[in-house]
Amino acid sequence: MSDPITSQRNPRIMYARGLARASVRRAEGRTLVEGPHALEAASGAGAEIVEVFALEDDPIPEALGLGDVTVRVNRHVLEAVATTGTPRSPIAIVTMQAPSSLEGRDTLVLYEVGDPGNAGTLLRTASAFGMQVATTPNTVDMWSPKVLRSAAGTHWTTAIVPLREPIEELRAAGLLLVASVVAGGLGPDEAFDGGRPVALLVGSEPHGLSASVAEACDRALTLGMSGDVESLNVAIAGSIAIYELGQRR
Amino acid sequence: MSDPITSQRNPRIMYARGLARASVRRAEGRTLVEGPHALEAASGAGAEIVEVFALEDDPIPEALGLGDVTVRVNRHVLEAVATTGTPRSPIAIVTMQAPSSLEGRDTLVLYEVGDPGNAGTLLRTASAFGMQVATTPNTVDMWSPKVLRSAAGTHWTTAIVPLREPIEELRAAGLLLVASVVAGGLGPDEAFDGGRPVALLVGSEPHGLSASVAEACDRALTLGMSGDVESLNVAIAGSIAIYELGQRR
Repeated sequence: MSDPITSQRNPRIMYARGLARASVRRAEGRTLVEGPHALEAASGAGAEIVEVFALEDDPIPEALGLGDVTVRVNRHVLEAVATTGTPRSPIAIVTMQAPSSLEGRDTLVLYEVGDPGNAGTLLRTASAFGMQVATTPNTVDMWSPKVLRSAAGTHWTTAIVPLREPIEELRAAGLLLVASVVAGGLGPDEAFDGGRPVALLVGSEPHGLSASVAEACDRALTLGMSGDVESLNVAIAGSIAIYELGQRR
Repeated sequence: MSDPITSQRNPRIMYARGLARASVRRAEGRTLVEGPHALEAASGAGAEIVEVFALEDDPIPEALGLGDVTVRVNRHVLEAVATTGTPRSPIAIVTMQAPSSLEGRDTLVLYEVGDPGNAGTLLRTASAFGMQVATTPNTVDMWSPKVLRSAAGTHWTTAIVPLREPIEELRAAGLLLVASVVAGGLGPDEAFDGGRPVALLVGSEPHGLSASVAEACDRALTLGMSGDVESLNVAIAGSIAIYELGQRR
């Protein structure tokens, strides 16, 4: 084994650190995957692992069959590459999944969802119920480290489709557009009636989808609640809507 | 208006800073509420606002009728009191709700839930569906700043019951004990059948409730999924279970 990298200015380390920025990720087609569980999920799903940075005593790279693409680093350098304060070894450069195209499949649409934790959690729930995910131009970068963490490995098994003209593209794909709104919509039985593949649109906190987006959809869905209807977290409200659709498939 | 406090060593500031610690919160019966939305929620729900720290140009204290208990501080001092990196004025010392006792009401039981974001989100969902919340000895302190943030003001409108001997106390309250588990349980129709008030027990990531806790319950609930059953975030899985119970009330 060669000597570990001990300088933050090493060119390979500088390159990895650049991937903390969305513009660099887009240009390079690569992102950072941090910690053993996240790396195992990516590797297990067949993602292309470009390079792995690991502490000298970390057995994970060999255990995952990634010894050939692994370089050893000291903790100082690991912390420089990481986007969290107390990183766990290893951290890897991984090729992002190519953007998919919409087909006639049930699709969760993250409409201008800016919070990375909510976006990742919703991706995770969509994956659990067999849905793909689409995003609008103002949605958070789905390949950012925070979204990757919240999604717990589901990036590698679920299609993510970036939309430029959301409503037009969803219609062109033949989907039934259902807006999730806090009040005034149909219940799940009516909103999802008919068997067509659904595009389920969810907005962000605190106000949800704008009225104009909701009006551009075919139907609106409102979840029945016994308490305060406005008080659900957006990831919770969206996940319950996904669950209700999933029960009808 | 008197001069603003400009020293982090001012005794009132030192006292407020102490409330970042759970042991001090318990001893004092008070916690910190940070930012205009959180303070408005606490104030609007009738919580006792002990003292408010606000920047000199912040109109919120007067708008909420809290001018009499407000002291002005500079940004340096506001940041010292805050538990987040970029705090918004005002920050207040607020009397925590007294612990309630269990009655025969639907109760979400956070069983050794250590993550403050999940605990707060689950409290928020329980509140939306009219349930109270109970905690076990190893659950995160529900009055910590992170839990308060995630719960978005629902601490002040929802009973929170700390349990010492969870199973015994829930039984003594006459509740039907339903364990939320990832596999092998009943569907919601059967798990919640009978109309008795339910104690819905949820565990923490990554493994959920222990087998011994699940076996000590009357029934187990498993949510049907078309995708990967283990991949739901604990706050999502718990929230869907709450929703399913709510639909039957």
